[in-house]
Amino acid sequence: MNLALPAAQGRSGHLYESLAAEIANMIGAGVIKSGEKLPSIRKLSTQRDVSLSTVMQAFRVLEDRGLIEVRPQSGFFVRRQLLRQPPTISAPPPQPTLVAIDDVRRRILQETRKENGMALGAALIDPTLFPNQALQRLLSGITRRQPELIGSYAIPPGRIELRRQLARRSLEWGGELDPEQLVITSGCIESLHLALRAVTQPGDVVAIESPVYYGILNLLEALGLKAMEIPTHPQTGMSVDALELATRNGSVKAVLVVANYGNPLGSLMPDANKQRLVQLMAERGIPLIEDEIYGDFYHGTERPTPLKGFDSGGNVLLCSSFSKVLAPGFRVGWVAAGRYQRRVEALKAITTMSTPEMLQLTLAQFLEGGGYDHHLRRLRRACVDQVHAMFDAVCRHFPPEAKVSLPQGGYVLWVELPQQVDTVRLLQVALAEGISFAPGVLFSSTPGQYAHCLRLSAGGRWRPEVAQALARLGQLLQQHMHG
Amino acid sequence: MNLALPAAQGRSGHLYESLAAEIANMIGAGVIKSGEKLPSIRKLSTQRDVSLSTVMQAFRVLEDRGLIEVRPQSGFFVRRQLLRQPPTISAPPPQPTLVAIDDVRRRILQETRKENGMALGAALIDPTLFPNQALQRLLSGITRRQPELIGSYAIPPGRIELRRQLARRSLEWGGELDPEQLVITSGCIESLHLALRAVTQPGDVVAIESPVYYGILNLLEALGLKAMEIPTHPQTGMSVDALELATRNGSVKAVLVVANYGNPLGSLMPDANKQRLVQLMAERGIPLIEDEIYGDFYHGTERPTPLKGFDSGGNVLLCSSFSKVLAPGFRVGWVAAGRYQRRVEALKAITTMSTPEMLQLTLAQFLEGGGYDHHLRRLRRACVDQVHAMFDAVCRHFPPEAKVSLPQGGYVLWVELPQQVDTVRLLQVALAEGISFAPGVLFSSTPGQYAHCLRLSAGGRWRPEVAQALARLGQLLQQHMHG
Repeated sequence: MNLALPAAQGRSGHLYESLAAEIANMIGAGVIKSGEKLPSIRKLSTQRDVSLSTVMQAFRVLEDRGLIEVRPQSGFFVRRQLLRQPPTISAPPPQPTLVAIDDVRRRILQETRKENGMALGAALIDPTLFPNQALQRLLSGITRRQPELIGSYAIPPGRIELRRQLARRSLEWGGELDPEQLVITSGCIESLHLALRAVTQPGDVVAIESPVYYGILNLLEALGLKAMEIPTHPQTGMSVDALELATRNGSVKAVLVVANYGNPLGSLMPDANKQRLVQLMAERGIPLIEDEIYGDFYHGTERPTPLKGFDSGGNVLLCSSFSKVLAPGFRVGWVAAGRYQRRVEALKAITTMSTPEMLQLTLAQFLEGGGYDHHLRRLRRACVDQVHAMFDAVCRHFPPEAKVSLPQGGYVLWVELPQQVDTVRLLQVALAEGISFAPGVLFSSTPGQYAHCLRLSAGGRWRPEVAQALARLGQLLQQHMHG
Repeated sequence: MNLALPAAQGRSGHLYESLAAEIANMIGAGVIKSGEKLPSIRKLSTQRDVSLSTVMQAFRVLEDRGLIEVRPQSGFFVRRQLLRQPPTISAPPPQPTLVAIDDVRRRILQETRKENGMALGAALIDPTLFPNQALQRLLSGITRRQPELIGSYAIPPGRIELRRQLARRSLEWGGELDPEQLVITSGCIESLHLALRAVTQPGDVVAIESPVYYGILNLLEALGLKAMEIPTHPQTGMSVDALELATRNGSVKAVLVVANYGNPLGSLMPDANKQRLVQLMAERGIPLIEDEIYGDFYHGTERPTPLKGFDSGGNVLLCSSFSKVLAPGFRVGWVAAGRYQRRVEALKAITTMSTPEMLQLTLAQFLEGGGYDHHLRRLRRACVDQVHAMFDAVCRHFPPEAKVSLPQGGYVLWVELPQQVDTVRLLQVALAEGISFAPGVLFSSTPGQYAHCLRLSAGGRWRPEVAQALARLGQLLQQHMHG
């Protein structure tokens, strides 16, 4: 690709503005296509005979306008999202509902969990993307040197070595988690479970995103809680305006949010919204539970700040785990529970007592050893590549009416299809051909919501079989719509 | 010791009967003391010039009369329980109470959990009594050969290899657990938690033993359940008669029982009671949750049958784990949930997802390898020795009014003191000298119940420091009573 247009000298305004305008025009005209890489800053500076800083400023303008995006260690790209419209902001019913997962959804969950065929349903990452050998060696060493770890168990809040490492890592987003406020758990699901139990009673209303991860709906159902689904924007996450309204009358007892890369939308809440959300809930005395499991999966250059980073009063309960980023098989998570720390710690002791200490220590040593950042970079790049490849395939094979999210982090894509599409019926046809995905109805407590949507997971390595499965899914979708 | 009395020839009745009567008289007269070992059958046969079978029959008569007891690989002993009266059968209030652990009890639990000083409070076993090295080698081998176990996680019900081994082990008590009915959990507390959740709603009444393990009270409290405490006999466990009465009006929604070696009493429910209990609950349609964590800790020669062994209709949910018998640090347990299997499996998926697979496989291989029975024999013998040593020390140092249980299995002793004794106050004095125990108030949902009782754990190795602590505790008790 060559951007060597006549140099934009002598025109009014700044040089970088005219350069940005020209590139924008080329993107608009399709001269440079969505997903295509732009020349490097150095190359463009030479081609156009302008300074490096002029190019950088032009790129910043284009980035701010949402036309291009930076990918770590790769360069600047024309944003793929331009290729397809993103899904629309959701409009769930404004009443709370007692969550009741019906049999259809239960069966779907069972079916799509099976690992046969081309599973695009479960949000699982390819096992070979984790540092399994390094962790294995650490684990063996620890149990060899301290065999008594097998013959004894400790009590919550968990090993201080791991809590210290977690606190140290929080400096990355400018936070400063207190090791004394952390409780180690058996995975993020247990973290959320303990957090919900700590701040609610059965029958209480909990405000959640919509669409929302079905694991959260399962939890609400099991705990006898009511869900209040809040409109959620595919790019900026839960609407704080809508939440402000919904929490006015005092009926909402807790809020559960994924501010960083919500599942299934891949949305990222802007910092201003985060700040307002945290402040609002603190003012209203409503505990704010944050599911932060995808925070390390940023596709850009910087790790986003968790809600906890805006919390000064201890009203935010940050829940996360290593199950997505480091060691799915260890089932080790944590809660930074703020002023609910004692209650969460007591509940952990009561429900599962403790999390295997040799696994906690293995993770602590891995984090201490410094290999974690390298691993995260590798994992993130693999996920970005897989997400983009899947996005491109969906754009290529799905009908033009399909709106597709391009997540800003994480590795799931949300597809919104015309209203008449029934993705549960589509799934039945697809399963018969060994292809699975997560139909939209799983992601709401309101029966029938998102029946025309579906979620795809790009956690697996990109292979010809995945491309073929998506092509076939596109065909099945065309038949479903027009057959 | 010499039992060479004049030979009992030519008297009416059987020879073995007169031999038994003579030995009984010697025990009654204190010629042979409680806890003392009887001569071997062979030796006695020679001494008394009677056949081996005559001696064996005499011993059986004495065993049936509760005067002597057999200890595996050790021989026959005069029953220690003769030395002290056992505690009385409990008489809890006949109304259900919403469980609310008060701050005093919460603080006591925290205090007695600390591992400083001479901790006789927590029911923990010495870590060196477990095959830690063997398990370490298996675990290292498994993760070395299958590093992908670290990078992935499976879904419930858990590894089939472990479920098959558990099913195979059930043959030992004549059972036949179905691997398909088993759900692997993260320890017995999680097993009980899932079982209770599977069969109750908040506000329901659950019938439990009294006194009862405080972990069960914590669970009931966390789940918003009411406790109906049932009178419990220190030797035969929960009174089935009382339970029959309590479950007549339909208000009891579930029963939670430790039939084999209840904690804190060490009671063992006779088979006839077990059969009646299981049948009664099946008839009344009340799910029966069995905490079977101490079943392998029998002090006699045979493993007792769990309630599950009398269950033909799937109404019993057997809960257990390896945390007491094999690998406390692994946190691996199970539920044999009968007809509640699907519900328990779904709840496991919802609340903690799964239990680390490499730990499940390590246990499966250990069980398959055949070292388990050898380990259990060694562990049981250590516990029996520790329990008897502690019983003797209590008899020696505690005031004669103290009634003491001699557990038929497990490793905790229950001490019932005169009504005016306040074991919470005694604990405060003891803690100041670095000695802890579990005061009786922890073991009931009714405030003040068992305030004159205490539980001692004999899970640690018997050492001079333990003997000294018990002697000192006896002194403190004397001062408390008479000071």
